[in-house]
Amino acid sequence: MDQGVIITVDVALITLQDDGLQVVLLRRDKEPYKGQPALPGGYIHAEVDNDSLAAAKRVLTDKTGLVSPYLEQLYTFSGGARDPRGWSVSIAYYALVNKDVLMSQENAADVAFTLYRVDELPLLPFDHNRIIDFAADRLRNKSTYSALPCYLLPETFTLTELQKTYEKVLGYKLDKSAFRRKINDLDFLQPVDEVRTGVHRPAKLYRIRPTKNLFLFDRTI
Amino acid sequence: MDQGVIITVDVALITLQDDGLQVVLLRRDKEPYKGQPALPGGYIHAEVDNDSLAAAKRVLTDKTGLVSPYLEQLYTFSGGARDPRGWSVSIAYYALVNKDVLMSQENAADVAFTLYRVDELPLLPFDHNRIIDFAADRLRNKSTYSALPCYLLPETFTLTELQKTYEKVLGYKLDKSAFRRKINDLDFLQPVDEVRTGVHRPAKLYRIRPTKNLFLFDRTI
Repeated sequence: MDQGVIITVDVALITLQDDGLQVVLLRRDKEPYKGQPALPGGYIHAEVDNDSLAAAKRVLTDKTGLVSPYLEQLYTFSGGARDPRGWSVSIAYYALVNKDVLMSQENAADVAFTLYRVDELPLLPFDHNRIIDFAADRLRNKSTYSALPCYLLPETFTLTELQKTYEKVLGYKLDKSAFRRKINDLDFLQPVDEVRTGVHRPAKLYRIRPTKNLFLFDRTI
Repeated sequence: MDQGVIITVDVALITLQDDGLQVVLLRRDKEPYKGQPALPGGYIHAEVDNDSLAAAKRVLTDKTGLVSPYLEQLYTFSGGARDPRGWSVSIAYYALVNKDVLMSQENAADVAFTLYRVDELPLLPFDHNRIIDFAADRLRNKSTYSALPCYLLPETFTLTELQKTYEKVLGYKLDKSAFRRKINDLDFLQPVDEVRTGVHRPAKLYRIRPTKNLFLFDRTI
């Protein structure tokens, strides 16, 4: 049955750089909007994709080389006005990645990412501005009650680095002792046998507990 | 372009009855699963629906007669395993309605609704059990920080009725003075020029402020 509807997935891949949330855009290699920066996306391939999550993973790996970053369904955008090719559905996902992992991937995969601050976007093709706004809002909201910002950090980090990451995502300062108490209560970190050495006194390093559900207040959906 | 994918909308229409959340199911009038109770749903019609929200409204009105209850996109379910007709996408919505409005609609539209408690469902066609679980979880979670339970009440209600509704949705008791302070802070109610008379002393009636955004902590998505 042909309903005359195009079905795609798009992925807003978000990282933290220069003190702000940034989104990865790629130059489109075909029409419509050929040459313009846009979110990585593509058609669902019913013959190979188990579901839309599998499609989003495939598209992200094909277009950026990244495998298994944090990936979550965001919202589904649809209608006759958003794509010049016709009535379309985009099942949108957002993904989080550490900027150093992202940059090393850009070199390894020989692709050219364009990074834009999520709050300083040019006018993008389709409704990609709206998708990115949704993704940034979702990330900021979930960061008020979850460990989501950890996915923007490298594998190991200090508590000070963790707090700064939360502050950059949320856009406001947090009280140090209240933050540490909350992190301690949530119990999603484990210490590693290393310290960060530098100009200051050595700081303990942590990573996310591998078995821990990061959504501690059961708001994963 | 035919991608070989079926695109539908399904609506989990939820009400509060007999102290618990209940979902409206309708007997399917065609195959697959003809005669079995399932969520109201249908194909997206690209030629008439502006977007998936319009499709959900159309399907809900066609199948239940209800116009403009609270309706919000829930999640998109997809894949090759969920529908015997082939690879399919269901853009799922959930809707909230007062039980008396629902029951009067059943009479007016001459349809037969089957109400099931959301936590005592039989095995349903497709992945409708999963869709209903998602909808109930979303409603309970959002009820911890929004005025969403108001949509389960009649147009006017007392503060005691409001608190009982929150308690039934959340599944636990709330402290009366803390609840009233929070409701007062959120400022989404306006008094109406009536009182509820009955066996106890008359109680003031309220309704939702028409202009008020019910998601006071900006977590609408």
